[in-house]
Amino acid sequence: MKTLLTGGAGCIGSELAVTLINSGHNVVVYDNLSSGRIEHVAPLLDHPHFRFVEADLLDKGALERAMRDVEEVWHLAANPDVKYVPGDATDKDLQQNLIGTYNVLEAMRRAGASRLAFTSTSAVYGLSEDTMIAETSPTRPISLYGASKLACEALIGSFQHLFGMKVCIFRLANIVGAKTRKRGATVLSDFVRKLSENPHELHILGNGQQSKSYLLSSDCVEAMTFAMNNASEPVPIFNIGCSDSLSVNSIASLVVEALGLTQVHYTYTGTEGGWPGDVPRFVLDTRKINQLGWQASHTSREAIALTIHRMLALAPLDEVGAAACKQ
Amino acid sequence: MKTLLTGGAGCIGSELAVTLINSGHNVVVYDNLSSGRIEHVAPLLDHPHFRFVEADLLDKGALERAMRDVEEVWHLAANPDVKYVPGDATDKDLQQNLIGTYNVLEAMRRAGASRLAFTSTSAVYGLSEDTMIAETSPTRPISLYGASKLACEALIGSFQHLFGMKVCIFRLANIVGAKTRKRGATVLSDFVRKLSENPHELHILGNGQQSKSYLLSSDCVEAMTFAMNNASEPVPIFNIGCSDSLSVNSIASLVVEALGLTQVHYTYTGTEGGWPGDVPRFVLDTRKINQLGWQASHTSREAIALTIHRMLALAPLDEVGAAACKQ
Repeated sequence: MKTLLTGGAGCIGSELAVTLINSGHNVVVYDNLSSGRIEHVAPLLDHPHFRFVEADLLDKGALERAMRDVEEVWHLAANPDVKYVPGDATDKDLQQNLIGTYNVLEAMRRAGASRLAFTSTSAVYGLSEDTMIAETSPTRPISLYGASKLACEALIGSFQHLFGMKVCIFRLANIVGAKTRKRGATVLSDFVRKLSENPHELHILGNGQQSKSYLLSSDCVEAMTFAMNNASEPVPIFNIGCSDSLSVNSIASLVVEALGLTQVHYTYTGTEGGWPGDVPRFVLDTRKINQLGWQASHTSREAIALTIHRMLALAPLDEVGAAACKQ
Repeated sequence: MKTLLTGGAGCIGSELAVTLINSGHNVVVYDNLSSGRIEHVAPLLDHPHFRFVEADLLDKGALERAMRDVEEVWHLAANPDVKYVPGDATDKDLQQNLIGTYNVLEAMRRAGASRLAFTSTSAVYGLSEDTMIAETSPTRPISLYGASKLACEALIGSFQHLFGMKVCIFRLANIVGAKTRKRGATVLSDFVRKLSENPHELHILGNGQQSKSYLLSSDCVEAMTFAMNNASEPVPIFNIGCSDSLSVNSIASLVVEALGLTQVHYTYTGTEGGWPGDVPRFVLDTRKINQLGWQASHTSREAIALTIHRMLALAPLDEVGAAACKQ
């Protein structure tokens, strides 16, 4: 089966590429390398069942060419940063996430590609009153990122109905793992960078009590491929995460401990969320994917601890990947 | 208060313009006349508190100019046709509804306009398992139109949160009324046209058992202005309709009766929905707006019967408007 994987040079996408090839897929990774890195797929470049296309989703011609003879699409490419920073364009997510997704759907329709897996986000729920957020919980995103992903889900559902596609939608928790970078835009890289600059003080965005679900990228890939093979509804939607959560203060302690520091003074911006559009607290209800037969191998705390360990070990990326995924 | 009303030359918009002017607003109607008609606002053109701008929402410059000093926006402009016909562009709703709405939001943000009312649609619910569809029912649109409107809602919610707007979202039933046209794309105009051509036979899209909520445009305007003045949540969403429904077969009988015909032979396409993306049956749960203090003055049957009556009476449009709204 020829499979197009958008965003396949990213942290999750590059692990998924390996899994798909190992399951017998011919994989075309389509990535503009705006946040993905060619190093992530370097070990695959000479594989006979792998091809890399450096192109943007807004380039319809390139997308149409890449879609030739494709049967299945894994659409992971997106603006990866949930934050809106004043001064940013307000249509970044609209363009990169929604118009990009429309272009994928339209190219699929024209090429007759009929199977689609899509990575949405738990940010579609926004500020929920539910303590455990299930797939049936109300969707009221408060970030431009979350809004654009919910818009993609709606568009995918209508294409499924009108053009007879088979689709699967994944609402991901925060995904961490072997390829989470020191220079990335995550809470971990923020803490590691700040403590390298000043090992006595850590300035934390928010009040430290923000608490979220974290999942290892290897677990995420396993969950998605499992669901894609086993789900039977017309438009199945799955929360992908583990059912616990971890506070920002706990993450700070884990980083401080891993760095061997003591007597670090914490300061806080003091807001409830870390930034405008941040959802300060949520626990994903993952019973739907659990009941289908998949369970996360690591808790949020384990996922974060492993990721810190690998991040600080500075091991070559592919070794890190292999190691972290086998814990 | 200076108020921008997009789609103000449409069936609902032109009635809303009158109501807003009567409540003391200075109204700028912004309409590209793609489906709206200048005749609908003709009686207002010389009013000192009214201005008409013929322009498209995709023309950002025109929108920015029209937004100057505006405090409140009623955003009704949209592609009005829910149907997707094979061969149509698949991005019509994405462009006209979603990008148009993004342009409105961004122009508001830049101009500091902070109040927004938006007409969404009951098509956001898609094929619901609930017999009465409340605002908390799952949203799984099956039409490109419904998907684009849900996407607009998500975008509006995130702008509200990030930029401190006051917004109100209305999920409308099928709106009919004085300005529903013989040549329009509604079930009524379809039946009237077919029976004018052949009074012995009526070919019905679907199986005739599709059943939906209908609301008079005058009731719709009243409900929306009432909610805008009285709702207090950050992003209130209201179903706007009456709590009953009417089948397509019943509508056919009302049209046949109004035309004075007998012995009309009905034939059917036989599909469950009238067209791909049609939601064959739904009843809106309108208790939320009812509990806020508003109630529809007419049932679905009354709304349809009145509309047929006015449509066939061929009275001048503004008289029809006045008459139908006062029933």
